[in-house]
Amino acid sequence: MLFLCAMPEQNFSYQQLYHFTKAVFQKIGCSNDHADTATQSLLSADLRGVDSHGVARLSGYIRLWEVKRVNANPVINVIHETPSTAVVDGDSGLGLVVAPFAMQIAIEKAKQVGTGWVSVQHSNHFGIAAQHAMMALEHDMIGIAMTNASPLVAPTFSIDKMLGTNPICVAAPAGNEPAFVADLATTTAANGKLEILQRKNLQTPDGWVQDAAGNASNDPHILKQGGALLPLGGDREHGSHKGYALGAVVDIFSALLSGANYAPWVPPFPAYVPMPAQQPGKGIGHFLGAMRIDAFRPADDFKNAMDHWIQGFRSCKTIPGEEKVLVPGDPEREMHAERMQHGILLLDSVVKDLEELAKKFNLSF
Amino acid sequence: MLFLCAMPEQNFSYQQLYHFTKAVFQKIGCSNDHADTATQSLLSADLRGVDSHGVARLSGYIRLWEVKRVNANPVINVIHETPSTAVVDGDSGLGLVVAPFAMQIAIEKAKQVGTGWVSVQHSNHFGIAAQHAMMALEHDMIGIAMTNASPLVAPTFSIDKMLGTNPICVAAPAGNEPAFVADLATTTAANGKLEILQRKNLQTPDGWVQDAAGNASNDPHILKQGGALLPLGGDREHGSHKGYALGAVVDIFSALLSGANYAPWVPPFPAYVPMPAQQPGKGIGHFLGAMRIDAFRPADDFKNAMDHWIQGFRSCKTIPGEEKVLVPGDPEREMHAERMQHGILLLDSVVKDLEELAKKFNLSF
Repeated sequence: MLFLCAMPEQNFSYQQLYHFTKAVFQKIGCSNDHADTATQSLLSADLRGVDSHGVARLSGYIRLWEVKRVNANPVINVIHETPSTAVVDGDSGLGLVVAPFAMQIAIEKAKQVGTGWVSVQHSNHFGIAAQHAMMALEHDMIGIAMTNASPLVAPTFSIDKMLGTNPICVAAPAGNEPAFVADLATTTAANGKLEILQRKNLQTPDGWVQDAAGNASNDPHILKQGGALLPLGGDREHGSHKGYALGAVVDIFSALLSGANYAPWVPPFPAYVPMPAQQPGKGIGHFLGAMRIDAFRPADDFKNAMDHWIQGFRSCKTIPGEEKVLVPGDPEREMHAERMQHGILLLDSVVKDLEELAKKFNLSF
Repeated sequence: MLFLCAMPEQNFSYQQLYHFTKAVFQKIGCSNDHADTATQSLLSADLRGVDSHGVARLSGYIRLWEVKRVNANPVINVIHETPSTAVVDGDSGLGLVVAPFAMQIAIEKAKQVGTGWVSVQHSNHFGIAAQHAMMALEHDMIGIAMTNASPLVAPTFSIDKMLGTNPICVAAPAGNEPAFVADLATTTAANGKLEILQRKNLQTPDGWVQDAAGNASNDPHILKQGGALLPLGGDREHGSHKGYALGAVVDIFSALLSGANYAPWVPPFPAYVPMPAQQPGKGIGHFLGAMRIDAFRPADDFKNAMDHWIQGFRSCKTIPGEEKVLVPGDPEREMHAERMQHGILLLDSVVKDLEELAKKFNLSF
């Protein structure tokens, strides 16, 4: 957790960050609705403890707008559909807005025919997958969200960086227990984890990164020197071909099905990184899905079984040194409750970044 | 690969194994059609090099029939459906037969409304996931197959074995290139890999197994002493919570949606292992999906993009000591071609097992 390291930081309430972030999005020209949605998407990362994907990235999104890679007033359109599927053109909008639009379509289709599946082209980074997948929960649906992303990951045996950290989220409702929410990058460790080690001046464990020549490395700075993140598993002996395959599936569902850019041609998040010369598709791709529980069995039966399932995992005997077995979604939900009540700690470097945005847009922060 | 170790083995043609296996299934009372389907499902594992899941398991399936856990004449039924979903009751049939039945329904639904998703209860082990997912390919669809399985895997921080190796397969068609087929257990290594190390008297790499007390272990025999397989990632530091979450998703889709048994209550494959005292559902669960490509975009556009994607990966620069970057499905497809032409090598122990079956059923082998 970021707060465990002795970096100077300041505390902000969710409301403070919400009002400021929304104001920034409005300043670049987002409508009230879009600014609201984008803010909720972005700050859900801070609330859930995924600090790397939250307000710390606000200035990054604004820089993408400045270089005209983000359209603040997109006309988001369904360009193809069947009863259970759609392709959405995000019109270069913020993924933070395009993804919830697409997820809503998936939910509507699930209401009609049991499931809905939406592949998205021409979008930008969508924040954390969980925020979009969890939209399904209140409808007694399972939600699924995935996205491709900037190429930082070398497939098994490769030096070249061919995939993003390509996360997958699956959210499933329970009854008395909180929902099951699995949200995972298909790499051993997400980029944000490297940043934490950089700040602490620590080495990475084995299997997280390799250097520019494809040799194993433990240097958290190695990506800046041509290195790569490694797929979940780390190396072949530990199953990296599986992490690679999962990242590839995310790319296929998000971009090959929609007509977005894929593999190393996905537009990079940092606005200063030049766009790939070749552009086989449009923008970044996402894939959103919703499955209505009672398209399979009565929702209450499912939710009772989920409660039983969750209680089974929570009552497992633990290995030496560990207190409890977690259910996917537990740490993020606990963090969310904690931060809504006590505020969100931001590193001084992030605060400084936001102060500069405030100055640029003549806002107070 | 099994042939690299100096174990005594004998070579059989696919046709030889096909005729014998089909005859065995007919002897236990399977119809001609079911015996044919079951044989194709089972032997697809041998052809693709997944020796642990092929004809080596035939006697295991027969023992399940002997203890009345497999019904050779199931009435496989759709018990609930919507335009894009169905739940199938496998009536205790062989998963080798039930899964293709369910996949066919997914394909028919995809023809009608774009996608089809079938959750299956009351089934048994279905062989390899790839065989079922790949049924979608000839229809220009993406195929998805997953199943829960005997509890052998300890979630992150757990001593208790709560999940099976719960594989996921995604098969996507290409144009001139062969199809993309990712088929992976959600553990660091599948049980079959342990068996190979046992025979060779070698230790496992780190992160594959733990002992009965939850300590790290490198003993490939440790499962027989109360140990457990570990989720993909191995330990928390290397992302085992992700492998655990993926295995959990497979369990939820396969069993919680269908009403099958889940978590540690999944019926074990070995017939001599007693059934769990508690049975929250029926049999084993699977989940099959089909997405029609042109429910998203013209199939030719997708397949051209897949060719480009695949060629991109194949032409990656490789890390020191490796010849080429593989695309998921490459090794299994090459093995399939090799074994169709030159035959399938079976260990003497497997041959002996089949000879005993031949004797039991008065067949020649």
